[in-house]
Amino acid sequence: MSRSLDSIVQALGGTLVGPADTLIRRLAPLTTAQPDELAFVAQARYASQIQTTQAGALIVPPALQDVAAQRAAVIVTDDPYLYYARLSQWWRAEHDAADAPAIHPMASIHPSAVIDPGADVAAFAVIGAGVVVSSGARIGAHVVLGRGARIGAGTWLYPRVFIGERCVVGARCILHPGVVIGADGFGFAPHQGQWVKIEQLGAVCIGDDVEIGANTCIDRGALDDTVIEDGVKLDNLIQIGHNVRIGAHTAIAGNAGVAGSTTIGAHCTLGGGANVLGHLTLADKVHISAVSVVTRSIREPGQYTGIFPIDDNANWEKNAASLKQLNRLRQRLKLVEQALEQAHHKKTEP
Amino acid sequence: MSRSLDSIVQALGGTLVGPADTLIRRLAPLTTAQPDELAFVAQARYASQIQTTQAGALIVPPALQDVAAQRAAVIVTDDPYLYYARLSQWWRAEHDAADAPAIHPMASIHPSAVIDPGADVAAFAVIGAGVVVSSGARIGAHVVLGRGARIGAGTWLYPRVFIGERCVVGARCILHPGVVIGADGFGFAPHQGQWVKIEQLGAVCIGDDVEIGANTCIDRGALDDTVIEDGVKLDNLIQIGHNVRIGAHTAIAGNAGVAGSTTIGAHCTLGGGANVLGHLTLADKVHISAVSVVTRSIREPGQYTGIFPIDDNANWEKNAASLKQLNRLRQRLKLVEQALEQAHHKKTEP
Amino acid sequence: MSRSLDSIVQALGGTLVGPADTLIRRLAPLTTAQPDELAFVAQARYASQIQTTQAGALIVPPALQDVAAQRAAVIVTDDPYLYYARLSQWWRAEHDAADAPAIHPMASIHPSAVIDPGADVAAFAVIGAGVVVSSGARIGAHVVLGRGARIGAGTWLYPRVFIGERCVVGARCILHPGVVIGADGFGFAPHQGQWVKIEQLGAVCIGDDVEIGANTCIDRGALDDTVIEDGVKLDNLIQIGHNVRIGAHTAIAGNAGVAGSTTIGAHCTLGGGANVLGHLTLADKVHISAVSVVTRSIREPGQYTGIFPIDDNANWEKNAASLKQLNRLRQRLKLVEQALEQAHHKKTEP
Repeated sequence: MSRSLDSIVQALGGTLVGPADTLIRRLAPLTTAQPDELAFVAQARYASQIQTTQAGALIVPPALQDVAAQRAAVIVTDDPYLYYARLSQWWRAEHDAADAPAIHPMASIHPSAVIDPGADVAAFAVIGAGVVVSSGARIGAHVVLGRGARIGAGTWLYPRVFIGERCVVGARCILHPGVVIGADGFGFAPHQGQWVKIEQLGAVCIGDDVEIGANTCIDRGALDDTVIEDGVKLDNLIQIGHNVRIGAHTAIAGNAGVAGSTTIGAHCTLGGGANVLGHLTLADKVHISAVSVVTRSIREPGQYTGIFPIDDNANWEKNAASLKQLNRLRQRLKLVEQALEQAHHKKTEP
Repeated sequence: MSRSLDSIVQALGGTLVGPADTLIRRLAPLTTAQPDELAFVAQARYASQIQTTQAGALIVPPALQDVAAQRAAVIVTDDPYLYYARLSQWWRAEHDAADAPAIHPMASIHPSAVIDPGADVAAFAVIGAGVVVSSGARIGAHVVLGRGARIGAGTWLYPRVFIGERCVVGARCILHPGVVIGADGFGFAPHQGQWVKIEQLGAVCIGDDVEIGANTCIDRGALDDTVIEDGVKLDNLIQIGHNVRIGAHTAIAGNAGVAGSTTIGAHCTLGGGANVLGHLTLADKVHISAVSVVTRSIREPGQYTGIFPIDDNANWEKNAASLKQLNRLRQRLKLVEQALEQAHHKKTEP
Repeated sequence: MSRSLDSIVQALGGTLVGPADTLIRRLAPLTTAQPDELAFVAQARYASQIQTTQAGALIVPPALQDVAAQRAAVIVTDDPYLYYARLSQWWRAEHDAADAPAIHPMASIHPSAVIDPGADVAAFAVIGAGVVVSSGARIGAHVVLGRGARIGAGTWLYPRVFIGERCVVGARCILHPGVVIGADGFGFAPHQGQWVKIEQLGAVCIGDDVEIGANTCIDRGALDDTVIEDGVKLDNLIQIGHNVRIGAHTAIAGNAGVAGSTTIGAHCTLGGGANVLGHLTLADKVHISAVSVVTRSIREPGQYTGIFPIDDNANWEKNAASLKQLNRLRQRLKLVEQALEQAHHKKTEP
């Protein structure tokens, strides 16, 4: 299943330097690539690795063309990382010929559901009343689409994705296995020491080109919808509370959590394990470091961090113990400063 | 599908001020509600928003009756938030007429299982030997009930809930998609650098009126059972280790974790992402702030917190670096205090 | 379903002191065990509990033989905890007679898949083209095995485990419900404010004797595979990013996360909720405390910690506020030290 460099450049552009018929069997990391493999060099700082690579071909920026061409066939492009991304898509499409779309006889589909003839429905999927599945959508095994859900064109739902009733997923989305869209938000009224359930009457509305990682959960809204805008990328095992809004092209890494009614701007990033408390607002282009906790709204773009620095356990114990005295320490320091100030005044008195 | 204010008050009580035949199409947030929508004002501090709301009807406490009645039809009640909760339940019941219970022909049910005729079993559910499903229970698509599991009356298991063998779920519970009850606890004996599995011979016992969020996991006990008492509310993606006991009416927000053999009291709350280490005891009415880590037992009710304050990254870096010197700082401060003390003594010597 | 002490010792070894025909109905914790139950005492520090136990039989180390034998029948063994682990396995095997392996008629199996006659496939499993399932493997209900996946001998996949295409699971593994192996890693190239997907062309390779907890996710590699070596134990709800490598016999507790391209050594442990950032290396025998964040590579074995100590909320607020001044405090302390130094010099000048 090899491909020639020529076929790659014809499909994706770039300038080819070297034999057009070089055959590529696999894309590979620069450090381990073999003569029948293709690697990329995104940044000049990896240039030294070019000297030793065994790769048969390299994707490089113009600045590295000369050094790379002495070692391998070369595809020159302004943004090698972007080129690699597009090549990975082309490569997968070349190698994973999708079967013709079909509705599996062991799927359970409500008669009122509308499935486009160009959509694919796998075994044991369950599709409720009034559901609409658009052309090119792929509904994996064990997927459940609740009553009135809508799935956009070209969207892939991997096996056992759950889409609750009335929830909407846009076009060209990818939802990985175990994703739960539209479970109830966590809402209760306290009453005499017990919790009275608040039914969650809103839904979830997901834009186009959204990707959602395995076992991630997005709760339906209490009254209005929870909204995920176009181009958002969510990693695995993320919790998105009810009535959250996530702005376009924001990316959130695994294990993160966003509590209810928080609004996150566009083009933000949240590192893995980061948490944003509820009812907050984050501006566009806010970047939260991994495992940091956002406890207040952030109005200015920038990078924000709040994690306890790791240390060997013995040091940590000492510093953590002192931390519980920190405010007292601050007061003691102030007293010391005052004492010095006083002593100084005394001395300088006539 | 509108409902008149009159029908609402007849069902739920409260004092109606305004036209009884006002039709309500939807429950909505105060700030965006339209003339055919109903909103609630839980607290006097939102009173100013009444002046500008477009809502056709408002649920308010007695103190806000007069101001609200000038703007919209009004339902007066002592606890508007509780009223809203109950209204949300009534509203959903009015609009989501459940189908008559039935056992789907594509469910796989062991002949020895006992399914009450008033229970509903959806497509592709798998029900093991000796399982008991009580009246009014709804077993969603792709649910698996292991051998000997018991499901209480009126309990809803959303699609692809897993209930392991011998586990028990009480009455009127709601388990959201992807919940795993009764996977093995994480128990191993170390032996010559490897881990020898300890089979988990206990089960999970869940009380009445418990709600469990999507993809949350509760492990079975090693010898005795893991126990979730009545009225507990768990959000999404929570990990509950083996032999944990969670007291009645405790609520835990998303992404939290409770490690093995810990006991949490009644009427506690854990914020999102909070973690409680293993073999600890938390008293009743202990409240743990989001993302805090409980490393010791807590015997007194109260609010407890331990998170690193978030800051812009440059400031955080400086403070985090200093934190690793904190104990040394404390020692240096002590030396300074001693030096001052000594200097003072010298001066005051005769 | 009781078993005699004699049958236990015949199966598992150890020295029996007391009546061989003592019948054991259940394994139980030391503090609650009854006369027809068996408990273990792993360490001498629990010796005092022997005085009051009602257990009919005890597993003890040689040092406790005499005191234990006065209270109950006794099995003496060098490592009671290991003995208990093995006993739990024997006990479960004795009580859970597995049905003869069979392929359920409602499973969906591609004609090109190769299922060993000694393997078991449950209802509604979906097995793709070219899959290989080895002898003694058990494929639970709703499991999905993607094209070309391989499942080793004796491996148990609990209901609704997902194994992506080309992923490999070794022999004698246990994967709990909801596990997702081989969803796409989280990889995108930024381009004009949007994210361009990098197809994840690698797979996941899991060794022998690996156990993976409920709803845990292990992403497929971008180019090379994500690798989990032999004997690794992962708890529930863990996120393992693409191209991570986890060394043999390492154990990771629930809610933890390991970001992409990180390598963790053998015989390590990560506590619950711990996070390791991407592109790092942890040596063998590194132990990370619960909820700590690893932000740099760790080259030396040892215990490492970084968590904010929990406190009552009022104290925490004061210390957290001071923490944001910590670097400034350090500078102020330095000024104080310099002032004192200067004052001292002045005094000691001739």
